[in-house]
Amino acid sequence: MHAGRLAELLGRWSSGSEALYLKLAARLEALIERGEIPADGRLPTERALAAELAVSRNTAVAAYDVLRDHGVVERRRGSGTFVRRPPRPGRGVIAEFNPMFLHLLDPVPDLIDLTCAAPPQPACLPEVVAEAALGDFGIGYHPSGLPALRQAIAGFYAAQGLPTDPGQIVVTSGAQQAISLLTQLFLRPGDAVVVEELTYPGALDAFRGSGARVLGVPLTAEGVSVPGLAEVVAGAKLVYLVPAFQNPTGSVLPSHAARRVVALCESHGVPLVDDQVLADLTLDGPRPAPLARHGGGVISVGSLSKLIWGGVRIGWVRADPRTAADLARLKAVADLGTDVVAQAVGVALFARLDRLRTERQCELRERRDQVVRDLRSALPSWEFRTPPGGQTLWIRLPGVDSRRFAQFALRYGVALLEGTSLAAHESSSEHIRVPFTLPREALSEAVRRLRRAWENYPGANGGELALSGAAAAGDGDGHATFPAERDDEPAGRDSPVPPGREHLR
Amino acid sequence: MHAGRLAELLGRWSSGSEALYLKLAARLEALIERGEIPADGRLPTERALAAELAVSRNTAVAAYDVLRDHGVVERRRGSGTFVRRPPRPGRGVIAEFNPMFLHLLDPVPDLIDLTCAAPPQPACLPEVVAEAALGDFGIGYHPSGLPALRQAIAGFYAAQGLPTDPGQIVVTSGAQQAISLLTQLFLRPGDAVVVEELTYPGALDAFRGSGARVLGVPLTAEGVSVPGLAEVVAGAKLVYLVPAFQNPTGSVLPSHAARRVVALCESHGVPLVDDQVLADLTLDGPRPAPLARHGGGVISVGSLSKLIWGGVRIGWVRADPRTAADLARLKAVADLGTDVVAQAVGVALFARLDRLRTERQCELRERRDQVVRDLRSALPSWEFRTPPGGQTLWIRLPGVDSRRFAQFALRYGVALLEGTSLAAHESSSEHIRVPFTLPREALSEAVRRLRRAWENYPGANGGELALSGAAAAGDGDGHATFPAERDDEPAGRDSPVPPGREHLR
Repeated sequence: MHAGRLAELLGRWSSGSEALYLKLAARLEALIERGEIPADGRLPTERALAAELAVSRNTAVAAYDVLRDHGVVERRRGSGTFVRRPPRPGRGVIAEFNPMFLHLLDPVPDLIDLTCAAPPQPACLPEVVAEAALGDFGIGYHPSGLPALRQAIAGFYAAQGLPTDPGQIVVTSGAQQAISLLTQLFLRPGDAVVVEELTYPGALDAFRGSGARVLGVPLTAEGVSVPGLAEVVAGAKLVYLVPAFQNPTGSVLPSHAARRVVALCESHGVPLVDDQVLADLTLDGPRPAPLARHGGGVISVGSLSKLIWGGVRIGWVRADPRTAADLARLKAVADLGTDVVAQAVGVALFARLDRLRTERQCELRERRDQVVRDLRSALPSWEFRTPPGGQTLWIRLPGVDSRRFAQFALRYGVALLEGTSLAAHESSSEHIRVPFTLPREALSEAVRRLRRAWENYPGANGGELALSGAAAAGDGDGHATFPAERDDEPAGRDSPVPPGREHLR
Repeated sequence: MHAGRLAELLGRWSSGSEALYLKLAARLEALIERGEIPADGRLPTERALAAELAVSRNTAVAAYDVLRDHGVVERRRGSGTFVRRPPRPGRGVIAEFNPMFLHLLDPVPDLIDLTCAAPPQPACLPEVVAEAALGDFGIGYHPSGLPALRQAIAGFYAAQGLPTDPGQIVVTSGAQQAISLLTQLFLRPGDAVVVEELTYPGALDAFRGSGARVLGVPLTAEGVSVPGLAEVVAGAKLVYLVPAFQNPTGSVLPSHAARRVVALCESHGVPLVDDQVLADLTLDGPRPAPLARHGGGVISVGSLSKLIWGGVRIGWVRADPRTAADLARLKAVADLGTDVVAQAVGVALFARLDRLRTERQCELRERRDQVVRDLRSALPSWEFRTPPGGQTLWIRLPGVDSRRFAQFALRYGVALLEGTSLAAHESSSEHIRVPFTLPREALSEAVRRLRRAWENYPGANGGELALSGAAAAGDGDGHATFPAERDDEPAGRDSPVPPGREHLR
């Protein structure tokens, strides 16, 4: 198993106050117990693992020794460390999953989570739930969605200049399920799906899980490159784009380019999915128009998860009636329909959407402006543009491998989403995505922690862990260069998460 | 396209007051518009379609003529009727779906729906929703389920003598999603999945949708045949059973057989899924023990949909921690987790589950006993056993093709689920499944309508539409034998849905 992949699987292993090698061993053992390590069962060398995790080689050696003592691995001198894992009967291949999902599945306390860009639970929730009209919904099965909610969503598009029949709407459990059902409908193993070279990780997981080939198109400062799209669209089975406040770069596809994109997909007969989940989060200027304004065949995906709250799993697809009917059937087989109480709450949310949208935009604008100010002042070498909408900054750490820096930052109490998680193709990345969805105090604290991590990071400012020197770093022992592993790191008032401690045996 | 398959797709086409041929033409046109007719595009002969739908041949001829006049089909003398359908670009194959789902997707008013066995919306719903504790759920993403709900479900198993860690529980959107995720985890195209020869249609759809081969094991009066299971289990990738109040036969697998079933699957290393969705609906005697009581590797599936309401989409899987972790990841990719408000309502429902269960059992027992009495008196030739639990009767109509009778009964305002919808293998069936979930007045009315349909059905009592004479029926014109198509059917107080009218051109 490649050390980089293992580092992703390890997730937030290094937060908490135990000795680093014990935390590493415990997390590795849990992964092995859960069968996460692929069939060949060979772990990376201590040297390679240490380099990826930005720890000393001694830490990796000690962790592997613990696993050996627990009977979990076998260490063969000269050939490596092998997992002793009981076979898993009757099990298919598990798709590889994104670190974003791993973080959600294994939450860690006392960590500022900057991996998932999502608003906190809204204060109005109990009020809206109490307001939800629980009419008579019969036996409760509504695979396409409650009529009242489909009507509300159709009205939402009509207000954007897109007359829409409720028969064109299918309610889903968040945009994630919308993408998942579209994957089922359009993609078979080996099919090509076209995306922006950087995109929403949940979509990448759904596409990869289906066995499709993911083709990334370069991004410009104004969204997807149209000539780049023209090069790969022929023969693809699906195009998936985030044209409004592109995730993660924040760009907006201008309407002249949007028209060309729609025409290109139409002329090749390739269905085009417009992920509009962020379109309502306009912070400067007007709301970007849905791509469906430029052509009839566009499939729009939307959700209340970013505008209201991720715990409200109300998403939808707007499509031609035929595609909508197909999706409704897949939805019936997937889960027979979204929870009716949740949908009734969705209707109540749509009734007050204008006010909620304004509130959210104000809040996000303030948070964005603050984090931009804080970062420019605390970390002037970090490069980014202020996005006109959405909820994230896309930041370049010049010359630094962001995956390794993310590992390092964990020990300062910050979980970062690094660029490779959002990349269509295998690559190393100098980028991280930083959301500005948290309350302002948490954002300030996050910047303080990031600054301390950066100041102490040996790879910053052209050090030996810099991107270009990554291979070299694995060759040296490097122990003396990791101040965060020493006992002498102060755990003062600014540091609610004590830094890791090195306990060598 | 085979006439029987087309009849399934047509669903409830014949209810309502318009002329039969117009209703048939409209429904066919909608199916063609939505691309439901397979690629070869050839419709059945008028004769074959008429036989399947229990209408006169003239009705089928007139319907096809309407379609031709609308430019939707082409009629070639001597070779048949062909769909003129625009191609669907970039679209994969759509799996065939069960009529049960078609009924849910196309609800029809003024029809007594006996296709879906599901309780009506409970009166306590607003109260329970108001009671749901909307605590602080952070950013709202909980792919494995809310901790409080996982805890409640673990406690539910502990109370049945199965100590359970919350880490073994994954919350799903109903049992349908649980089955759907298990399908994704265990089945690849071509894999064999073993089921009872008659089983829950939603499971059949999920398995077939994955491209798996479905192998049916014979049923006895005491559940699945253990020798039958032994014959096919080797090499299968999954076994899915409904041992408690088997759907549709109502049988209960005795514990000695349950032990053998569990041992058999264990010895072949085949994961065994115990669908316990009906297990709480005990009407006589004790609650059947979960199969997991007999061995460690059993995967239990449960839900609140049958005990409380289908609109509450709270289901779950109980499995070993490793399988639970795998399912949680698939759940994350499918929809990032079930709606949080819905899960909070689920917690509130578990807090009062004992009382709700008792109420529901009382209600179901009364309804079962009434419908049994009514049927024995009104339709003494119908054969069935009184089930000790669950919510359906499995009724044999001796010598009658139940699919054709179901078509006929539609015109008397009753939608029936006929046996082939629940069958693992292609077959004709003399059986229908009749739920006793509706209020008592609706059940009485349903029996009255069924009696009138039966009295007028030419195939009943060994008539020409009887099962054994099905082929022969397609050869005659049969017009004079369909009283329900005549104008002279009384539409009196007992008949809220006017019977169909024959309007020949």
